[in-house]
Amino acid sequence: MAPKFISFEGTEGVGKTTAIDGFCRHLDELGVAYVRTREPGGADMAELIRGILLNKNSILHDDTELLLMFAARADHSYKTILPALDAGKWVVCDRFIDSTVAYQGFGRFHGEQSALDKIDLLIKNFVPRLPDITLWLDLDVAIGMARAKNRSQADRFESLDTSFFDKVYQGLEYGFNKNSERICRIDASGSIDEVASRIREAVGL
Amino acid sequence: MAPKFISFEGTEGVGKTTAIDGFCRHLDELGVAYVRTREPGGADMAELIRGILLNKNSILHDDTELLLMFAARADHSYKTILPALDAGKWVVCDRFIDSTVAYQGFGRFHGEQSALDKIDLLIKNFVPRLPDITLWLDLDVAIGMARAKNRSQADRFESLDTSFFDKVYQGLEYGFNKNSERICRIDASGSIDEVASRIREAVGL
Repeated sequence: MAPKFISFEGTEGVGKTTAIDGFCRHLDELGVAYVRTREPGGADMAELIRGILLNKNSILHDDTELLLMFAARADHSYKTILPALDAGKWVVCDRFIDSTVAYQGFGRFHGEQSALDKIDLLIKNFVPRLPDITLWLDLDVAIGMARAKNRSQADRFESLDTSFFDKVYQGLEYGFNKNSERICRIDASGSIDEVASRIREAVGL
Repeated sequence: MAPKFISFEGTEGVGKTTAIDGFCRHLDELGVAYVRTREPGGADMAELIRGILLNKNSILHDDTELLLMFAARADHSYKTILPALDAGKWVVCDRFIDSTVAYQGFGRFHGEQSALDKIDLLIKNFVPRLPDITLWLDLDVAIGMARAKNRSQADRFESLDTSFFDKVYQGLEYGFNKNSERICRIDASGSIDEVASRIREAVGL
C-alpha cells in the first residue's frame, strides 16, 4: 500500500494523544514504517515558530498568528512530511490544516468569510501535500475541557475560555462538511479501546 | 501635512543606512515627529522572526522564508507602523514590500510569475498599509557589493553571491516599473550630500 499521510484533529481534551499513541502501536504491530509528528512544529524551524505561537507572553495580531502557522507548516511539509512519504513511510500528524481553519478561522476570526478565504488561499499556495485521511475526534467541548483542565501548564491556546473552543468546534464541523471525502468524524466518547477500533476501521487497517 | 510612510530600498552597500541617517536628521531639523524602523523586524515578535531569517544556520525553504517575512511584516505593521501614523508621526522604514519582491520574488524564485503572484496575494491580503513614497537607492550592484564587503559579519542574505544580487536588482527595477507612482528611483552615486539632497527633493521636504 502506498504510504498515507494521516492527520488527527479535535478540540482540547478529546484524547488525541492517547488515540495517536494507540494508532502508532498498531502500525508498529503491523510492521508499517511511519513518522509521528505534530503541528505547529515537526521540523527545526517550525519548532522555533511553535515556541513563539504557544508562548503565553507572545502578543500576536490574528494575521501574524495565521502567517506563522503557515510558515511553520511549510517548514514541516518540506523537511518532514514530504521526505517521509518519499521514503515510503506513513506520516501520522497531530493537527494539520483543519486546526488552522478551526483555531484561526473560527476561533480568532469568528468564521468570517474573508478570513476563511485568506486561509483557503494560503492552503492552495503554500501547502504542498494535504493529508489522505483526517480523523476528527469528535467530543462535546465541555467534556473535553473538563479533562484538559487536569493538565499542568496551559499554553497560549489552552488557556483560552470555553467560548473560544465552541468556535473551534464549529470550525471543525465546517471543515468536515466541506471536506467529508477526506475527513472522518470519529466518535471520541467511550473507552480508549472503542475509540482505537473506530480509528483503525476508518483507516482500513 | 499628514504623516507619511516612507520606505528605503536598495541592494547591498548602496548607502541606505547613511541616507536614512541623513534624512532623519533633516526631519529632526524640521521638527517633524517620526519613527525610524526596519524590516525584517521593527516590533518584538518581528525581531524574533528576523533572528530566524538572518541566522546563517537557518535552513529555510523559499516558501517558509516568504511566509516568515510576511508574518514579521504583519507584526511590524500592526504594532509599529499603523500606531505611529495614527499618532501623527512619520514612519521611516529601512526596507518594506519591495525588498520581498526583489529578494524573495527575484533572488529566490528567479522572477517566476507564479511566485510574483503569490507575493502579490500576500501583499493584498496581509499588508494593511503600503508606503506613501518608496525611495529606491539605485547603484551598480558591483560597486555596492565592493563597499558591503568591508562590513564585519555578513548575515544569511549578505553572504550570498553577486548573481543573487543581480537578480535582486532586477526585482527592484521590476517593482519600480510596476509602481512608478509610488517608487522614486534615486541616483545613489556621488557624495553623501548629493544623495541626501536628491532624497529631500523626491520627498518634497
